[in-house]
Amino acid sequence: MDNMRTARRSRRPRETQQLGASFLGQPPLRNHLKPIEPLSQDQLMAIHEASLRLLEEIGIEFMGKAARQKFREAGAGVDEDTGQVRIPRELITEALKTAPSSFVLTPRNPARRLHIGENHISFSLVAGPPNIHDCVNGRRSGNYQDYISLIKLAQSFDIIHCLGNQPTAPIELPARTRHLDCYLANVTYADRVYHCSAIGRNRALDGIDVMAISRGLTREQVADDPGVLTVISVNSPRRFDESMSDGLMAMSEWGQAVVVTPFTLMGAMTPVTIAAALTQQNAEALAGIVLTQLVRPGAPVVYGAFTSNVDMRSGAPAFGTPENARATMAAGQLARLYNLPYRASNSSASNAVDAQAAYESEMSIWSAVMGHANLVYHGAGWMEGGLTASFEKIILDVEMLQMMANVIKPIDVTPEEIEDGLKAIAAVPTGGHFFGAEHTLARYETAFYQPLVSNWQNYENWELAGARDATQRATAIWQKALDLYEAPAMDPAISEALAEFVARRKEELKDVDH
Amino acid sequence: MDNMRTARRSRRPRETQQLGASFLGQPPLRNHLKPIEPLSQDQLMAIHEASLRLLEEIGIEFMGKAARQKFREAGAGVDEDTGQVRIPRELITEALKTAPSSFVLTPRNPARRLHIGENHISFSLVAGPPNIHDCVNGRRSGNYQDYISLIKLAQSFDIIHCLGNQPTAPIELPARTRHLDCYLANVTYADRVYHCSAIGRNRALDGIDVMAISRGLTREQVADDPGVLTVISVNSPRRFDESMSDGLMAMSEWGQAVVVTPFTLMGAMTPVTIAAALTQQNAEALAGIVLTQLVRPGAPVVYGAFTSNVDMRSGAPAFGTPENARATMAAGQLARLYNLPYRASNSSASNAVDAQAAYESEMSIWSAVMGHANLVYHGAGWMEGGLTASFEKIILDVEMLQMMANVIKPIDVTPEEIEDGLKAIAAVPTGGHFFGAEHTLARYETAFYQPLVSNWQNYENWELAGARDATQRATAIWQKALDLYEAPAMDPAISEALAEFVARRKEELKDVDH
Repeated sequence: MDNMRTARRSRRPRETQQLGASFLGQPPLRNHLKPIEPLSQDQLMAIHEASLRLLEEIGIEFMGKAARQKFREAGAGVDEDTGQVRIPRELITEALKTAPSSFVLTPRNPARRLHIGENHISFSLVAGPPNIHDCVNGRRSGNYQDYISLIKLAQSFDIIHCLGNQPTAPIELPARTRHLDCYLANVTYADRVYHCSAIGRNRALDGIDVMAISRGLTREQVADDPGVLTVISVNSPRRFDESMSDGLMAMSEWGQAVVVTPFTLMGAMTPVTIAAALTQQNAEALAGIVLTQLVRPGAPVVYGAFTSNVDMRSGAPAFGTPENARATMAAGQLARLYNLPYRASNSSASNAVDAQAAYESEMSIWSAVMGHANLVYHGAGWMEGGLTASFEKIILDVEMLQMMANVIKPIDVTPEEIEDGLKAIAAVPTGGHFFGAEHTLARYETAFYQPLVSNWQNYENWELAGARDATQRATAIWQKALDLYEAPAMDPAISEALAEFVARRKEELKDVDH
Repeated sequence: MDNMRTARRSRRPRETQQLGASFLGQPPLRNHLKPIEPLSQDQLMAIHEASLRLLEEIGIEFMGKAARQKFREAGAGVDEDTGQVRIPRELITEALKTAPSSFVLTPRNPARRLHIGENHISFSLVAGPPNIHDCVNGRRSGNYQDYISLIKLAQSFDIIHCLGNQPTAPIELPARTRHLDCYLANVTYADRVYHCSAIGRNRALDGIDVMAISRGLTREQVADDPGVLTVISVNSPRRFDESMSDGLMAMSEWGQAVVVTPFTLMGAMTPVTIAAALTQQNAEALAGIVLTQLVRPGAPVVYGAFTSNVDMRSGAPAFGTPENARATMAAGQLARLYNLPYRASNSSASNAVDAQAAYESEMSIWSAVMGHANLVYHGAGWMEGGLTASFEKIILDVEMLQMMANVIKPIDVTPEEIEDGLKAIAAVPTGGHFFGAEHTLARYETAFYQPLVSNWQNYENWELAGARDATQRATAIWQKALDLYEAPAMDPAISEALAEFVARRKEELKDVDH
């Protein structure tokens, strides 16, 4: 096992070796620390019970007819006028019986398979920002060229395990078919699991089809061997819009993974207390989870949480806050109560890739890891509360995630390590040093995490070398990563099939309003 | 209890209110999260056993005659030629019987009393750097004026619970009496527990005397009601120098707190593996802890850990690394095994107050908190691996510590909170918002941590306001804090007694080489 780990570590790709970092968090990555549980068992059950009451007595609005029909057929109380669905607790119990506690997503490169559940942990590229920023070219609207660069950066770092929803919106492309260009870039420039846009059925099905083709499979085949995921963001409080529930249903119907994530900023979309926010978040997440199991029992589904707070002086959203961290660790307890995989996020509200960006992201990464998140969405590149994807922030996040991948490793304390250590200590005189010791020489290459961004020079040398701060160094790193980038190989027949599919679908969607 | 907490929160000083932050971590601050334990019980005992063997079979060098005598009298094997002391495990067992699991340090302001042990957590100002940096005046050598400014900044923030060893060295003052000027500044510009320099007996005793006078007590009286602490840094590997053990003995003799901290950079002062580093650190810490109890059974003592690593390419020290974090959490298990209070650090190697400074400090703060450190030394202001005290870093650290003080609070999930929350949720329509809700209005003022440094404006407003990054904002905050600073009141008779003591001691030390 240890030899395997060492071997895996040394098989790192040329690019990342040249970038100078070590241990990159290749999947499967496991979190060997126990979770932090801020709630007592009684408190956990009180929140569970309150959210069941919320579902039974207050209800959730499903704007989509198809979703309401599923709930009605299953015995929920449905008001067709208001869209309110009241979900009896029996439906929750039944859904939790069939929802898997873990599952595997396989992209076109099987070495990039994601294990979601147990103590596995995976990180995604940033998802959804309308804007792009880097320190060379400044801030600009999302576009396809930057989209491709972001995918290339994700492919350059093993620790970015999968692609989230469009890391930026290529807004110059027609909205109706933009998703096809994005899926094509995802499978062309990377070989990882990606996110299907589930705004309506068609975008979801197109994403599934592109993944299937990239693997040389049919849609029917990937239904039993999934390769994509989607995030269903609830319109909190208590509303699923039609396109979202239609997208959810399409994904579940075809056996792909659905991450149900209420976006619950305390003070705005939920009450200001963590107790109430978790109650509401839990009810909303359970409602979506039940729907996946009504559509297809056993469909892979993830308990998603994104409870942060707003600035009560201005109403501005805040991320990586203490309340965000507490809610994230507590929500992990809810996911584990239901034996479901858990999703959290790496987030920050900072407008610059500065100390604030780093400490807010660390707050969210540490709490996600301590809360035993299996999927840390927006893992790399998120800034401005999600309004901008940043090239420098990707590099900064990669460093922080790689560090965390090393924190969660088990500590090697075998009798042999202890004996070797004692011998090494005895061999060095008091007040001496271990630099040249045999014990050191045998282990130094892999003993410590070798950083990507961190600079450990002394002040004088650092100053002579230009006194560049971490953000400036990150600029040089993403530039070098893009220079070193090599597209993952693809069978020309598959490239052709993909191009053909995209061309056909663009033609079909020309006049369709979906 | 909850009302008490709310009341305490609102009694914050004027200065910090004006600086705009909330919940400042006034003592006593408690860590309500359970510790993270990376070692299994077997691994923990294996390290314990190996360190006992190291103490028994390999030994620790004590360069000080007085220390060796104590050990010899207690039955340890002492080699007067080499200074090696071999400590039988019975001495460890006996020492751990008398060392207290927690204790209280009382400074001149009793509201600033420190509880060290149990689940209490306290943070100190940076200690020891020879240099000073701020973004207005640049980098410079330590001096008394900056020393005073640093003490004033510590006094401005409740979360800086105590003063570490000289936050910078006032090198223009005579080395022989500099400690007196520092102690005087400590009790004049702040009202907190401080660190006594324990380089030799005299500096330690002077520190105890200044604390005693500031409280209107005698040295004999504070021996039973301690008010100061010292950190004894072991010269790893396996060496205590004479001035350090003499200082330790003076502090213990007079009942003051000793924090025994091996400074163990893996690859330099210890072997490269965490297992061996923890073995050596543990043996060195236990050796110092035994000495405190040989001097005065029951003397307050803290298990200190500072295991990080060096850059194996250059030998440069590194801090806030993954290995540092893992060792910090594991060392907490050793401290708890011995039922001793635990000290860790907030550290970073960054040369700038940038993203690296923030993520390295967050790595060390989170691991200290997850490892249940009772004292986080260098809590605010440490940069360049301890070579520089930074004004901006103090502000950045205060923000990160205040955030952490909020993370470790218990989550309020009473039946009343749950019921109130459900009612509040029911009262807002689906897709609505909670900004104006009665539940929100009743709680919004204290619901969330209000930041000191973080900027949550949207990008456009942030840019209009000057696009200042977190470090630039930190400059404005320390400037404002110094402007708003007010010295804590002191009885003129005590001021006079202090001045008199310092003058007398300076005279006495004029020709003494101590």
